[in-house]
Amino acid sequence: MKEVESLWEEVRELSLGNSTQVERLELPPSPVQFLRDFVSPNKPCIISNALLHWPAFALWSCNDYLGRALASTEVSVHLTPNGRADSLAPHPTELSSFCFASAHVQQMPFTDVLHLISNPERNKDLVAYAQQQNDCFHAEYAALASDCEAHIDWATEALGCFPEAVNLWIGNHLSETSFHKDHYENLYAVVSGEKHFLLLPPTDVHRLYIREYPAAKYSYFQDTGEFDLKLEDPIRYVPWCSVNPFPSLRTEGKEMNDFPLYFNGPMPFECTVKTGEILYLPSMWFHYVRQTPGPSGCTIAINYWYDMQFDVKYAYFNFLQSIRLPPRGQGACLTDLSSVAMLKKNEVFKRDPQDSKKLPLCWKWKKKITAIARDPAD
Amino acid sequence: MKEVESLWEEVRELSLGNSTQVERLELPPSPVQFLRDFVSPNKPCIISNALLHWPAFALWSCNDYLGRALASTEVSVHLTPNGRADSLAPHPTELSSFCFASAHVQQMPFTDVLHLISNPERNKDLVAYAQQQNDCFHAEYAALASDCEAHIDWATEALGCFPEAVNLWIGNHLSETSFHKDHYENLYAVVSGEKHFLLLPPTDVHRLYIREYPAAKYSYFQDTGEFDLKLEDPIRYVPWCSVNPFPSLRTEGKEMNDFPLYFNGPMPFECTVKTGEILYLPSMWFHYVRQTPGPSGCTIAINYWYDMQFDVKYAYFNFLQSIRLPPRGQGACLTDLSSVAMLKKNEVFKRDPQDSKKLPLCWKWKKKITAIARDPAD
Repeated sequence: MKEVESLWEEVRELSLGNSTQVERLELPPSPVQFLRDFVSPNKPCIISNALLHWPAFALWSCNDYLGRALASTEVSVHLTPNGRADSLAPHPTELSSFCFASAHVQQMPFTDVLHLISNPERNKDLVAYAQQQNDCFHAEYAALASDCEAHIDWATEALGCFPEAVNLWIGNHLSETSFHKDHYENLYAVVSGEKHFLLLPPTDVHRLYIREYPAAKYSYFQDTGEFDLKLEDPIRYVPWCSVNPFPSLRTEGKEMNDFPLYFNGPMPFECTVKTGEILYLPSMWFHYVRQTPGPSGCTIAINYWYDMQFDVKYAYFNFLQSIRLPPRGQGACLTDLSSVAMLKKNEVFKRDPQDSKKLPLCWKWKKKITAIARDPAD
Repeated sequence: MKEVESLWEEVRELSLGNSTQVERLELPPSPVQFLRDFVSPNKPCIISNALLHWPAFALWSCNDYLGRALASTEVSVHLTPNGRADSLAPHPTELSSFCFASAHVQQMPFTDVLHLISNPERNKDLVAYAQQQNDCFHAEYAALASDCEAHIDWATEALGCFPEAVNLWIGNHLSETSFHKDHYENLYAVVSGEKHFLLLPPTDVHRLYIREYPAAKYSYFQDTGEFDLKLEDPIRYVPWCSVNPFPSLRTEGKEMNDFPLYFNGPMPFECTVKTGEILYLPSMWFHYVRQTPGPSGCTIAINYWYDMQFDVKYAYFNFLQSIRLPPRGQGACLTDLSSVAMLKKNEVFKRDPQDSKKLPLCWKWKKKITAIARDPAD
């Protein structure tokens, strides 16, 4: 449907920019600037030098400090065999289909959690991610409260409210977060290590192929060190993005064929949020996240969720999402795109990768992204 | 198309409110409040007590003052036989079709213009409206510059720029402005008299039936006192809203039948902006304007056009507008609506107007609006 494709293009041409870069501010914006230039147009930015004054900036790169501060604390840890929680996984019983897999969550002494995360090589097939999206920074991690700002002052003034939730994330390079969106304005501060984001605006909703998947949950058996993935009973369906932006070499042909609107459309925005930086991740933006640990072996981030305005942009989003694109093979856009996808599948891989002008867009940008963040499963 | 109807409803439920009222602020907002609560959600408001400190507020209700200040000045005046410039008019040669009629514009001494406007009874079939949408306040009316603020400080700080144009409007109760939209953030200050607005959000674009009309222009012949309306040569087409919200008794049946999405959809927002008040008219909102003169016989207003952001909201608007609704009789929504319109045409006018529960929505709200501002042509 060419109208939807035009929308993807126009929002980039008018507002977001046609490169894949995210605008960077050297200093925190004023509340008016933040509202006018980013929140109102629903446009991401990265703010450098935003948390240099936090005690956490100096203290949290040292595991000893964190271990002492939380010595007597149990925290929630998400355990998976592969670092992919809240993500699609092969259906436990039906061949070639998928389920929505949640992590095994358990309480553990913080020092054990930190050891698991910062020494991943000692526990093969066990990936730990300390995170809870329930304002955990003010609950489990209350002992660290004075190390960070309780809120981001320029954002609080702009948005007219305090954060609804502040969450702490401690993980390593094996954890990734699959494409999804949140109904919050998000300020994502990286305190140690780096976070790598792929971002797509809400206008691109059809490109993520949101479908209903049966919910499943990992159970971890400490004695055997093995995981079991079981569907919830009674069965429950979760709408989730179908696209894995970094499919393995084995599956990429099928994935690029199944999800042509993603792989043949405009490149996602991409950015690396470095230690001491804050990403403004606007409400309703789809995001996929990976991370690189800092010197302590952990990536530590804290994010502030502020209530979003459910206004005309949200109404427009719901309207856009309510429009069902014609099935493959019908409608000019999809016919064109699937023919590109077929071309790629049959021919492109034999071409000279240096001759980028002859390659379809999808392959050009996939190559670039793959170079940046290679799937560890490959 | 039910998705489009849902959008009209949702933007009201989430953000604009389900009444036809426009929010009123007793004092000017802070720049952050203005951005967050009105500009970003593209939502109108009226600010009372916003220009009590302007010298104009006291001085401009007196024609003598204005006459003296502009004694030696020629200004542009728009002349029409009926107060409807930039509006649809019967096509000069083709029966039952319409053209887009512009006023006869000429330069006249300001004192003559003021006399024409404030004494409409002396010149039957000649309606004068002093206005030019070309920053005229800083050009023709420069002698009045010190009577008003050069810009609205809280809006300038919020929007991050000075006004692109400041325009002065002097008219009487015979002039009206037909439904249209502007690509500007508009701050509309009433200095004398009252302005009555009907407002529809950009999401309602299909309800205005924007169509291409051939451009025509009035010529006024001073010796005979008559107007001639001629098509431009070469012919030029102007996209314009087809809906007249106050059709005459003679034409209302046809108009309500021709434009069912307007007359059967949600009521427009309506407001009266009184002397000393400012209307924030958000970019891309459709507006229809009438006026009531102050004690001097004139309505005087000054509006500040600020550049709008062409961001995701604008991209969504273009996307919405690009979606063509199915022709009448196809699609559930239009079938439903046209059957309501037919019901009304054949039956409603015979019903008891007190029994409002039995009346379709369209008639209920039309009755109310008609009572507020009766078409002078009726």
